[in-house]
Amino acid sequence: MTPTLVPLPDGSVTSPQGFSAAAVHAGLKPDGAPDVALLVSSASCATAGVFTKNAVRAAPVLYDADLLGERPGRMRAVAMNARVANACTGAAGLAAARAMAQVAEQAAGLPSRTALVLSTGVIGLPLPVEQVAEGLRQAATRLSREGGLDAARAIMTTDTRPKHHAVRLETAAGVITVGGIAKGAGMIHPDMATLLAVLTTDAAAEPAQLAPLLRRVADRTFNAISVDGDTSTNDTVLLLANGTAGVDPARDGALWKLFEEAVQQVARHLALAIVADGEGASKLLEIHVVGAASETAAREVGRAVARSALVKTALYGADPNWGRVLAAAGAAGVPLNTDRLTLQASGADSGADGWLTLATGGATAHPDPEQARAIFRQKTVRLRLDLGIGRAEAVVWTCDLTPDYVRINADYTS
Amino acid sequence: MTPTLVPLPDGSVTSPQGFSAAAVHAGLKPDGAPDVALLVSSASCATAGVFTKNAVRAAPVLYDADLLGERPGRMRAVAMNARVANACTGAAGLAAARAMAQVAEQAAGLPSRTALVLSTGVIGLPLPVEQVAEGLRQAATRLSREGGLDAARAIMTTDTRPKHHAVRLETAAGVITVGGIAKGAGMIHPDMATLLAVLTTDAAAEPAQLAPLLRRVADRTFNAISVDGDTSTNDTVLLLANGTAGVDPARDGALWKLFEEAVQQVARHLALAIVADGEGASKLLEIHVVGAASETAAREVGRAVARSALVKTALYGADPNWGRVLAAAGAAGVPLNTDRLTLQASGADSGADGWLTLATGGATAHPDPEQARAIFRQKTVRLRLDLGIGRAEAVVWTCDLTPDYVRINADYTS
Repeated sequence: MTPTLVPLPDGSVTSPQGFSAAAVHAGLKPDGAPDVALLVSSASCATAGVFTKNAVRAAPVLYDADLLGERPGRMRAVAMNARVANACTGAAGLAAARAMAQVAEQAAGLPSRTALVLSTGVIGLPLPVEQVAEGLRQAATRLSREGGLDAARAIMTTDTRPKHHAVRLETAAGVITVGGIAKGAGMIHPDMATLLAVLTTDAAAEPAQLAPLLRRVADRTFNAISVDGDTSTNDTVLLLANGTAGVDPARDGALWKLFEEAVQQVARHLALAIVADGEGASKLLEIHVVGAASETAAREVGRAVARSALVKTALYGADPNWGRVLAAAGAAGVPLNTDRLTLQASGADSGADGWLTLATGGATAHPDPEQARAIFRQKTVRLRLDLGIGRAEAVVWTCDLTPDYVRINADYTS
Repeated sequence: MTPTLVPLPDGSVTSPQGFSAAAVHAGLKPDGAPDVALLVSSASCATAGVFTKNAVRAAPVLYDADLLGERPGRMRAVAMNARVANACTGAAGLAAARAMAQVAEQAAGLPSRTALVLSTGVIGLPLPVEQVAEGLRQAATRLSREGGLDAARAIMTTDTRPKHHAVRLETAAGVITVGGIAKGAGMIHPDMATLLAVLTTDAAAEPAQLAPLLRRVADRTFNAISVDGDTSTNDTVLLLANGTAGVDPARDGALWKLFEEAVQQVARHLALAIVADGEGASKLLEIHVVGAASETAAREVGRAVARSALVKTALYGADPNWGRVLAAAGAAGVPLNTDRLTLQASGADSGADGWLTLATGGATAHPDPEQARAIFRQKTVRLRLDLGIGRAEAVVWTCDLTPDYVRINADYTS
């Protein structure tokens, strides 16, 4: 049979076999919405994690990184809470993260040191351990195969929509499912600029193989989105593989590639949902950098464009301002040959042959201004920047910078 | 006598002896304002330049860097124009920059290869060489000791005020004057996000000594301001020393330090004027990073805070949101010890003992919220971030991110 990837738009972390979850309101969110969640696997999971590169790392990040360094093949659960990030909380915060993990392990009847923790919310406040613990105990009694969507809701802060997705990979060797939930990144809210994502799969895997796979996938998805360039103290992406499906994709190079593609599809779906839900965002910009010396160089150039306030305001103003894009690309810290730069634009509605050349040889291509404006007025704008140097490429996504973004982030009352 | 530094608020590039300048309207600006300027020295100048690190370098940057590499001790003039940046213009742009320099040399009766060029304005348009040349010829007939202020006006794009300053250094060895003019940086206007500065002095100096001095001064002033994080294709700072005052500050280590301080005072005045005039800016933020392992590390941390959209919107909203400052500092790429971070705030009106501790040991210091808000409501807010690692420090300045910034930069019509 030809291997097939089937998207499951209603899927989540509990779509793969052997995972159950529940969420409860533990009194942290003022509106009574779920704010504590527990995800449990029926079998030990090979687990990989990608954590924030911010030098200021929240207690849950320190705790998880330490735990995964020690026993990446024996994870059973992820305990999550919103509203309090447990960041900049010192030794007491680390003790609180440990207590949260221990409560989850006891409540779910799991061995010691098998639960990871994720927190998101306000920086600097102490974690209300008793409330979170009571929430986890309640959640442990309500675990179900449907609970993944509730968990997606529980980790929302100012996200306007829960973010979840899954794909089913059907192959001759058997069926593997990959699922995930996430919450928003930067710009989402003052002090809550956190990206959290949990990916699960019922494939069998070794932690040593899973870690580089997750690193590649994260670079191409979560690390390829930029909302406002701010990096959080809590950013975490976890991938848990419990082997329940009885298929080990590593037995076959082609199957492993398909498995990576499945994980990447789920991660990309979640990453794009985060950008589209950016606070104040009204439009999406996809930047495809080609002709680079390396994928890393391509991504750095794309990220520099995605970070540029001038590019993001031009997007908001529907202004096909190609000079800003080249200037932002030039600031990426990647060697460029100006005379070889070619920039094209297309809208999501423009079709495959709808590429309009804005600049070529590093100078204006004198595009039809009306045609250029028509592209930049669309909800999704695509840029294709050819560096003319090599053959590597990368795609990066961002949203526009709007007066609403400023208003939302300025009007926070501390 | 005790050496004295006397600020000359009405001073400019023509305050030092031996410099004259003029500006004319050459038809580039639609409102009839001066748009071409010429600065001439009566004697050969030792010259140093600091140029944009953007990989996309405008033709004038390429021309000047090449010229200074060849004959840094023989400069006589700087030809300037606004409105067209001569960036992303390829080989034709380089020829236009060369033509502009040659016209300046001929019009002012100077030897070949002694004029530098500066352009600012829209990226991608060809330089109207004939108009600029005619402007330079006219300017050459009107050179005067008062022309420096007119030159400051001519290089304005969307700057709302001309930027100029000078200081007089009175020492036992004689009197040295340092003057300067500049135009705004980032955010100033779509496609015109350029920082240009020309510093002059009548001190005698060797190019080999001037270059490291200008690098240090630029790092502490022009490179220590951030408006929107975008780097221009044209950013240039020049320092010309014509020796007319007959004082060589390099003869004496203490005098050289005073000379550097004089150059730095002029540069800092111009840099702060640029931030204060940032498009849409309503407030100024001074970030003093202390306790760092090196000055470079301190500056990188300060710049990361100054770049953060979340910090800049909090400033606009008068929100003493210290978690955002620590998170931004952590993203600087500099190793930090979270538990040693101390953050204090003060307003310009708060006096010397007005420092309020917001966070200490990397966790909240539970400041009085009303007192904190009162500081953040002031027009100039000062932050002092102690990294608790070493003894180096740096100061960085930025302005707030306002809805006006987004509006101004989105409403540009291409």
